[in-house]
Formats: sequence, C-alpha cells, structure tokens
Amino acid sequence: MNHSNCKKKLIGAEILCIGSELLLGNIINTNGHWLAQELAYIGIPHFRQCIIGDNHLRLKEAILESSRRSKFLITTGGLGPTVDDLTTETIASAFGSKLIESQEVLSDIKSKIQNKQDESLNSITKQAKVPHDAEIIPNKYGTAPGIIWSPIPGFTILTFPGVPSELKQMWTDSAAPWFKNNVQEKTLIVSKTLRFAGISESNLAENLGDLLNSQNPTVAPYASLGEVKIRITAKAKNKQEVNELINPIENKIKNKMGNKLYGTENETLQSVILKMLSERDEKLAVAESCTGGGISAEITSIPGSSVCFLGGIVAYNNQIKHDLLNVPEEILLKHGAVSAEVVELMAKGIEDKFKSDWSIAISGIAGPSGGTKEKEVGIVQFCISGPFGMRTWHESFGSHRSRKDIQKLSVLKALDQLRLFLLSDS
Amino acid sequence: MNHSNCKKKLIGAEILCIGSELLLGNIINTNGHWLAQELAYIGIPHFRQCIIGDNHLRLKEAILESSRRSKFLITTGGLGPTVDDLTTETIASAFGSKLIESQEVLSDIKSKIQNKQDESLNSITKQAKVPHDAEIIPNKYGTAPGIIWSPIPGFTILTFPGVPSELKQMWTDSAAPWFKNNVQEKTLIVSKTLRFAGISESNLAENLGDLLNSQNPTVAPYASLGEVKIRITAKAKNKQEVNELINPIENKIKNKMGNKLYGTENETLQSVILKMLSERDEKLAVAESCTGGGISAEITSIPGSSVCFLGGIVAYNNQIKHDLLNVPEEILLKHGAVSAEVVELMAKGIEDKFKSDWSIAISGIAGPSGGTKEKEVGIVQFCISGPFGMRTWHESFGSHRSRKDIQKLSVLKALDQLRLFLLSDS
Repeated sequence: MNHSNCKKKLIGAEILCIGSELLLGNIINTNGHWLAQELAYIGIPHFRQCIIGDNHLRLKEAILESSRRSKFLITTGGLGPTVDDLTTETIASAFGSKLIESQEVLSDIKSKIQNKQDESLNSITKQAKVPHDAEIIPNKYGTAPGIIWSPIPGFTILTFPGVPSELKQMWTDSAAPWFKNNVQEKTLIVSKTLRFAGISESNLAENLGDLLNSQNPTVAPYASLGEVKIRITAKAKNKQEVNELINPIENKIKNKMGNKLYGTENETLQSVILKMLSERDEKLAVAESCTGGGISAEITSIPGSSVCFLGGIVAYNNQIKHDLLNVPEEILLKHGAVSAEVVELMAKGIEDKFKSDWSIAISGIAGPSGGTKEKEVGIVQFCISGPFGMRTWHESFGSHRSRKDIQKLSVLKALDQLRLFLLSDS
Repeated sequence: MNHSNCKKKLIGAEILCIGSELLLGNIINTNGHWLAQELAYIGIPHFRQCIIGDNHLRLKEAILESSRRSKFLITTGGLGPTVDDLTTETIASAFGSKLIESQEVLSDIKSKIQNKQDESLNSITKQAKVPHDAEIIPNKYGTAPGIIWSPIPGFTILTFPGVPSELKQMWTDSAAPWFKNNVQEKTLIVSKTLRFAGISESNLAENLGDLLNSQNPTVAPYASLGEVKIRITAKAKNKQEVNELINPIENKIKNKMGNKLYGTENETLQSVILKMLSERDEKLAVAESCTGGGISAEITSIPGSSVCFLGGIVAYNNQIKHDLLNVPEEILLKHGAVSAEVVELMAKGIEDKFKSDWSIAISGIAGPSGGTKEKEVGIVQFCISGPFGMRTWHESFGSHRSRKDIQKLSVLKALDQLRLFLLSDS
C-alpha cells in the first residue's frame, strides 16, 4: 500500500487513542467509546479504532497507516506538557512538517494560568506548538488545544486531549460542527435516547417485543446501574425523513411504557424533578443517612437547582439524627436507625427545620459491614413526605452488591419515587 | 513491510476486538481492557489494540498486518453461530488455510445444547470448524471454542468469544497457562501508583526532572481533574528484583515531593483523612453550600466512615445558612453568602450543632450563572476549623470551568487542606 492508491480510501474515520496506560490496562478506554457514539450520531462511518502507547515510532507508523486507508483520523491523548506527550510532534514528523509557536494558543494558555506560579515556560510553549497550516480546536477547560490538520490531500487529522471533559467540550463545540460543514456524505444518522427508571432491561425488552427487531430505525436497549435507556437510530437523507422514522416508534414506546419513561436525551431524574417542583413553586429538602449526601450532590449538580432545593442534613450518626432531626433516642433504640419509624421522623424533622414542601429521608445498610440476620446489607428504608401526606417503604438491593452500588441505587430509587409522587399528585 | 523482515518483529502481543457494535459505540470495550491487564500481569508486552467491525476484508487486512508486526495476536468476538461471525474463517483465509470439522468440538457443542430446541445443525457445525493444526481452547460456559494457531512461523493467534464471562474462563484456564509454558520471556511487569494533590502535572514533572527519562523502571505522570498520579513500572525476572527497581525510585520521589504525595495505589484523599482522624479519635462534620453534599458523599463512600464522620448540613439557601447554621442575616446581606465572614460562621455553626472536633465550610459560585464582576464564577470560599483554630481562604478555579468541575475541584481542595492541617497538627 502507498499514497498512490487513494481511490481505495474509505470515506470514513479511524480513532487512535494514545497512551501507555491504556495498553497496560490501567484505565478503560471510555474516550474511544464516547467518540464512536458521536461519529455514529453525525453519520461518519467508523472503520477502525486503535490504541498505541507513548512511543514515537509505533505512533508514527499507525498514523501513516491510517493516512493510506481513511479520510479522517481522530486522536485522543498525548497533548499534555510532559515528555511522554508525543502526539503533535509525531504527527508533524510523520508528514515532514515543522511545528511553530501559535501566539493565539500561547496567550490563551497564559490567561488560564495567570495566577499560578507552578507552570513553567517550557510546558506552556510545548502545548502552543502546532503545524503552521493547522486549524486550532480551542480547549475551554484546559490548556492543551487540539488541531484540525490536513497534511496530505484527502486526509485530515483531528487531535484531542485524553481528559474526557476537555475532549467532550472540544468535540461538541468545534469538531462536530466542523464535520457538519466539511463532509459531503449527507446520509444523516440520528439517534434519540429514551430514559427509563424502575424497570429492568430484560423486562423492558420483553415489553417492546418486535420493536427491537426494527431495521430503520433500529431500537436498542442499554442498561447501566439502576437505569435503562433505549436508543432509536434512524438513517435518512434529511432531518424531516429522520423524524418521520423516529416519531412513530417513539410514540409506540411511550404508550407502552407509561411513566416508566422519565425523560429523553440528556434529561436526568433530578432535572425532571427540579422542573416539576419549579412549575409547582415548591421546595425540597433531604435527610440522608446511608447515602451520605449523594441525593443532595446529584440535585445540586444541576444549574439553577437552588430555586427549588433548600438543602439537607447528612445525619451519619444516631446522635445527629436525635440532635438535629429530633428523632427520640428511645425510637432509635427500639427500632434501630434503619426502620420505618426512624425515616418517618427524619422526614418530619427535616420538614420542620427547612420548612420545605417536600422531604426525602433515607436510612439503610450500605455495607460491607453493619448487616445483621434481620437487617442485612442492602436493606434501605425510605420516606417521602409532601403535600399529599407521607409514604414509607423499604428496598432490599441485595447483600452481594458493593457499597457504592447500594448508595447509587438508593439515590436513584428515592429520586424516581419522588418523581412518581409528583406525577400522581398533579 | 512484508514477511521477510521478521527480525523487526516485536516480541509482544496485539489485541484485536471484533464487532461492529464496538465501532458504533453501542457497547464499551471491557474485553480489551481486561485482556490488557492480564497481559501486563503475565509479563507479555502489549503494543497495539484494535477494534474492527464484522467485515471480512478489513478483518483480513488487520490480521495480516499484525502477523508482520507482532508475535501474538489475541482476538475477541466473531466466534458465534450467525453469518456476521467471521473470525475463524477470516483467519484461515488470510493464510490460505481450510477449515475442518472438529469431532471433539462437535460433540462438546451437542452435549451442551441437547435440551435446547432452537439451535440448528448449521450453527453447530459452523462453530465446530477450525484449522486442522489448531489447538482448541475449550469454552466451559458457551458453545464457541477458541483456537491457538500458528499459521506462519513466529506468529500465533489466540481467539476468544466476545462474551466476557466466556473469555475470562478460557483465558484463565487455558491461555494464561499456555503463555506460561510456551513463551520464553519470563519478565514480570509490575506498576506502583503514587498519588499527589495540590500540584499540577507540569510542576510535578519539573520537580522530578530526569527521573521521567528512566527506562527501567519507567516513571510516567497522569493527570485527571484536581489530581496527579505517578506510575512507576518495572520489568524484572521476579518480585524481588521488581521491588529492588521500584523502591529506590519511590523513595526519591517521596523525598522530593514531601506532603504533596498523599497516598499510593488505591488510596484516596478521603480514605487518608479518615485514617488520620481515626488514629486521633476525632470527629468531622461539614457545612456545604456550592458543593451541595459532594464532600459528604465522597467521605461516606468509604466503608467505616461513620467512625469519624458525623455528617453535615447542605445549606443551599441563605435562609438555611441563617436558620440552621446561625449565620446572622446582616452578615449575609453585608458580605454576601460567598465571603470569608460567612464560611467562618458556617464552620462555627456546624461545630456547635454537631459537636465535632473538625469542621469544613464551603460557599462558592459554581455557575454557570450567579457570577458578578467582583465575585466571578469559580470563586469559592473555604474555612476549616479544628483543635488548632481556624483557617479561612479562597480559591479562584476559573470562570471557564464547568459547574461539575468547580464542584469537584472544591471538594478535592477542601479534603486536601484538611489533610495538610491534620499533618501539620500532628
């Protein structure tokens, strides 16, 4: 193979993830997975994905191979300030190009680190060096920019840092629009995500039956801890045709699944709840024991949550449940901290202190120790109190689960139940 | 490159993960990650990892490339009964070999599916076809066996199914012992991770200087938001030699970096803090505004945290800062919620309520809105109060950062400062 057989080139992209830590299995390649989804979303075929370590020669070889096979090469990693960050200089050397210092990048980096004493001039200038005819992909959150560069006709490289938040911002703000403007192939591949809570993947799949065998759009379920998603993916010539394919399927699923479906696209349980509370002009406060602040943290991750969320008390200790939430000592002694009686009093206590319309109280055994024969690890008591009154229940998430999983499942369950109560109370 | 330059071959392995679902981003490549860890564990260098879709020509090309570069190719996926399972026949055709029906495999498959009605004879025989001189890797949990096959001198392919449980069983029971018996290089590769806080990657790299150019062990820095790690990786014949290589480097780094180094391996800031508090028999409570429960959640993710962590108040609202933490309204009005005065009173308030030895208070502007000219997004006020007295300071994380990043950086900074105070107070 050589540069002359460009006719055989694939009109598609390859992804090259760079970093010895990936080859050593120290971290999992979530960047490659995320970019693969994004390429599918914008309709660019993805033919090959590789991981190469921080090694100049092997990197150069891989880059040249891609340049003979594909139209686009997307790289992640190796843009940092240290000597084992080799991406930009290796790309340039693969095509006999030199790097120049970009004044634009230099001043951006300087503005970001103006108050820090600990950055050396070397590391700044290293990150500012790019091929002279490369377009810069600005990095909003970090100092290392990416580039869009066509070293030879019919081959374009796009580089991104390995830090996932920086990669995502740069892709979304710069690279995705660039592909939209510069790539001719106009088969649109559009996906729509539907999000479900309180149902298992297999149960959802059973409910959807033949819909899962649909060819265009395809309907594929994905499960993660405590949540299931359905991705509907349609291929068509334009946005309207795509919508005509997706909408009927989406409506069928909505009708079948009712309020198990809580949102679409990037909505979360907490964003949906905040929206409902805000429409009702009602306030929420929480009393957390085993989730240790996890519900508060999820809710306050949403911008503007302060409109409806007052805060909470993390009562990680019986004395605090008594002193701050007014749970009587004799109740704690008689029923134990993980009991219906205690979470009801916790909910009452938080409502009194915060003067909230809604309150959530949680107490459970997240493990790995602390379980007994009667109350084993994974048992969690919940109480939600609101304008309609109070509901108390418990869940057994299973003693085989990890502490983090039990905490996460408890947070999701509490949020989903609050959502359902808000729905039924409207 | 061609078959003749075998001398340049790498004495190591490549991994080829096969499946269009991986390239579409429908599933994450956990098999590649797991195999990478296993290769490191048995000391086989891993130079390249690729994903290719269910496409005969592209697969063939990738297999032939590997055969020119490396000694071992490990594949996952494409061994199933359907038409898009192409691995075995593509490997055979790449080297001009034919497949024969293995009676051994055939009877194994038949014994496994005797009670199932839904398997056709075709799918049985397809999975039983292997090159005549291939060794079989038995599949205990499924029907598709793998093979160990050397189609040309100095190149061996090992195939595995894509189902993680089957891959793991087959690797552990058959492939790992095979490598042990058949590969001469008896090199152990062992890594040790050192964890740092309060220092940037470039500053750390500068401090370590020439250590980063060390060849055995290698010393490589990795950065994630608010944290830097150093991985020391040594190759040697046995555990003792590995330790003799790693220990002096580890000690040098420890001496240079002092208390910027907070832990090793899987330690976290919160696990280190809880250990120190527990040794001193002291209790902690927190008052959080902009981090919204994030500090509590991090601390309570550690098993046994209840021994030293009492809990906290998420005061996401000025009224709550007043009602629950006793911050006077006039102070809130005069200085604003994000001020040294307010966090000091919050720390005092939480200490009074929780009767804790140590308290952390945080109030800041996590954005994206809420910033002003004087107090822009990213400004966070901190107060830590303990047996030594009280320290108050603020950080400017930068208005370019996302809400989640500002929240996470605030949590890490508070934890790291508490760690330093505990150290200086001991």
